[in-house]
Amino acid sequence: MIKKLLIANRGEIAVRIIRACKELDVETVAVYSEADRDALHVQMADEAYCIGPNLSKDSYLNMANILGIAKMTGCDAIHPGYGFLAENENFASLVEECQLIFVGPSPKAIGKMGAKDVARETMKKAGVPIVPGSDGIVENIDETLNIAEKIGYPVIIKATAGGGGKGIRVARNQEELIKGIAITQEEAQKAFGNPGVYIEKYIEDFRHVEIQVLADQYGNTIHLGERDCTIQRRLQKLVEEAPSPALTEKIRKKMGEAAVKAAEAVDYTGAGTVEFIYDYQNEQFYFMEMNTRIQVEHPVTELITGVDLVKEQILIASGEPLRLKQEDVRLEGWAIECRINAENPEKNFLPSPGKIGMYLPPGGPGVRVDSAVYPGYSIPPFYDSMIAKLIVHAPTRREAIERMKRALSEYVIDGVHTTISFHLHLMEHDAFIDGRFNTKFLEEYDVLNQ
Amino acid sequence: MIKKLLIANRGEIAVRIIRACKELDVETVAVYSEADRDALHVQMADEAYCIGPNLSKDSYLNMANILGIAKMTGCDAIHPGYGFLAENENFASLVEECQLIFVGPSPKAIGKMGAKDVARETMKKAGVPIVPGSDGIVENIDETLNIAEKIGYPVIIKATAGGGGKGIRVARNQEELIKGIAITQEEAQKAFGNPGVYIEKYIEDFRHVEIQVLADQYGNTIHLGERDCTIQRRLQKLVEEAPSPALTEKIRKKMGEAAVKAAEAVDYTGAGTVEFIYDYQNEQFYFMEMNTRIQVEHPVTELITGVDLVKEQILIASGEPLRLKQEDVRLEGWAIECRINAENPEKNFLPSPGKIGMYLPPGGPGVRVDSAVYPGYSIPPFYDSMIAKLIVHAPTRREAIERMKRALSEYVIDGVHTTISFHLHLMEHDAFIDGRFNTKFLEEYDVLNQ
Repeated sequence: MIKKLLIANRGEIAVRIIRACKELDVETVAVYSEADRDALHVQMADEAYCIGPNLSKDSYLNMANILGIAKMTGCDAIHPGYGFLAENENFASLVEECQLIFVGPSPKAIGKMGAKDVARETMKKAGVPIVPGSDGIVENIDETLNIAEKIGYPVIIKATAGGGGKGIRVARNQEELIKGIAITQEEAQKAFGNPGVYIEKYIEDFRHVEIQVLADQYGNTIHLGERDCTIQRRLQKLVEEAPSPALTEKIRKKMGEAAVKAAEAVDYTGAGTVEFIYDYQNEQFYFMEMNTRIQVEHPVTELITGVDLVKEQILIASGEPLRLKQEDVRLEGWAIECRINAENPEKNFLPSPGKIGMYLPPGGPGVRVDSAVYPGYSIPPFYDSMIAKLIVHAPTRREAIERMKRALSEYVIDGVHTTISFHLHLMEHDAFIDGRFNTKFLEEYDVLNQ
Repeated sequence: MIKKLLIANRGEIAVRIIRACKELDVETVAVYSEADRDALHVQMADEAYCIGPNLSKDSYLNMANILGIAKMTGCDAIHPGYGFLAENENFASLVEECQLIFVGPSPKAIGKMGAKDVARETMKKAGVPIVPGSDGIVENIDETLNIAEKIGYPVIIKATAGGGGKGIRVARNQEELIKGIAITQEEAQKAFGNPGVYIEKYIEDFRHVEIQVLADQYGNTIHLGERDCTIQRRLQKLVEEAPSPALTEKIRKKMGEAAVKAAEAVDYTGAGTVEFIYDYQNEQFYFMEMNTRIQVEHPVTELITGVDLVKEQILIASGEPLRLKQEDVRLEGWAIECRINAENPEKNFLPSPGKIGMYLPPGGPGVRVDSAVYPGYSIPPFYDSMIAKLIVHAPTRREAIERMKRALSEYVIDGVHTTISFHLHLMEHDAFIDGRFNTKFLEEYDVLNQ
């Protein structure tokens, strides 16, 4: 069993991991940047060490310092949390080379899921549905037109070497496709030095639905149902819920089985999430990517299953076999999470760091708060603006929404702007209440002014 | 459906009721004493009115003022919480006479359960086990000796008119019983002007186990399992848990059925608790009393059943039929509640009112806080010293204890003494961990010095 764990992270997830360690009687070592001297995770850990200046690249991404402190303090394991080094194959390898346990999957599994083209190929072989498209690079225009005809328009042209929204173009008919391929190839050559493009079916209206998996070191892999993370702003998730209001029991089962296959295909261990594009109009789902770490939105799954995912991560990394079988997993009630960011929703979500004055989180039945702030805490401007996660659980979705409204209205955070007002508006929006929305929801509705 | 509710209480239970109302979209009216001007329930309610000076008798027990404000503000119902007027038959009657809904059982049910001799008689007729003893007053000494022989020594001699620990004497054999009856009769004559005494079997080692019941206005009564409230100090409960570590499935079922019978015997409606003496050595339970109101410790039942008891109270009082059937009730995992009092456990639990400085409640998985305090809040010296309830939920009792320790150690309440340190010691006590204890636990163990 892991005895002493270094947490290579900050904020609420560092606090979350310390909480799990305390309950498992595992000693904790926190690390922090100069800006985080007064952070809650520093106060809560058994030991804490400064690893560098304010910027992440100098501190939370400083592998040498983190590994040095882990060895110096006699840790036997490192938990990377999410973000920072959590999905860095190289870091995971270095942790192992230092004779430390990496609380997460093998470096190889991280690598296979991290490279998008490799992941797509691996999933295809494993029988996990992927978005239909060309097998690799477009070589012959006639062949490509045939494929497009087969999968149906619109299609999306993607540069192999592209990313971050660049080298992407939608084609709605044969003419647009012929032109589009030529333009995208040219652009890709200029931008990435690689003209290769491929095509995929373009799914316009979809929901982001993901499956939580857990796998031990002995080949046992289970899933814990889905999370619906369709409410996004510029690809940033804002609200997550479990279960998904869009899934039938049949799709839920199929998607869960596909996620287990995906994890097994890379010999996954630990907690992971397989994300899917859910084309609800056609009741089809497609592999999007796998997050090889704990996710921000993991609490909604914890609330409906009663499973403590971070504890399970640590137990699995310690070599324990899974305590649950697939048939033991029961989904009870409905959970919703709102990410509370220090941002001004009235000013296009402009970050709002600064000193918190009065602070009082909500309480009472069915309310959970995962946060790292306290009265008088100064939110530094260097990191993610998420300062708390408010998660509620109730027997039905309708009751969960009412509970979330109640909890949001109780939450006192003075001194900085937060997204609480945005969430209150969202919870009263008819389309949200009815569960009828896709990833374009926030583009289509001006939630704050309704 | 109730539209506007006056909450005739203060502190965490007033906050709890406001939370339920918000989720049900019921408007709320708070009342407060002069000392409670800055109380959280005053801030959270839609409206709030001062009902009198600091002392309870002038404010929270001032029926005329409370009823006057309910009528003036157009309320259609009053929720009494616990304590104060919650089990006052006269108040419940006055509420009805004012054409208001009393969120609780009928005045008649309150009365029948409030008078101990009437309750004992009613239970006996209903077939609910009562502690064996004489039927009414001891008239004939030979007959009484026979009864004592039959039920077995020790027995307890109780003055009919006694109470509060007066007019009570234990007899361990025939000689002590003969002497004891004479002395107690004489004392009772002097103290209460009534020499009547009766005898009951004296159960030395018992656990306090109680059953939560819910009954609607249409004759449907269900129970929601038990709570174990054996950890007490001078008859004040300090820690409660659900389920009870001492009950077998068979006893649980029998006790639940007995509680339903008890409630049905007085045509009970709403949420109520039937308290039992559980003689664990003989696996026998006996009716102790029924609390005809919501109890402090109701959250442990909410956590293991997923039922919101305060919402159910309001729905039942509104005339809604029960939403649950007995077979729908499932007990999941383990819940423990620690009452956090502003008292100094190092100084014999001396009350410690005063101004709170830094305040940060614990969070994360499986933790619930029901409180009415905030940073900078001044705890007035006039009322109960309980300032918060910390409740945890986990899959097993052992994990719940670890979670409680973790949550207690996180809880920051500066400026006043609290019982947090006492609870931390208790959670590490072997007898507590093993679940081997009875109501004498705190007399037998010096928890703080182990």
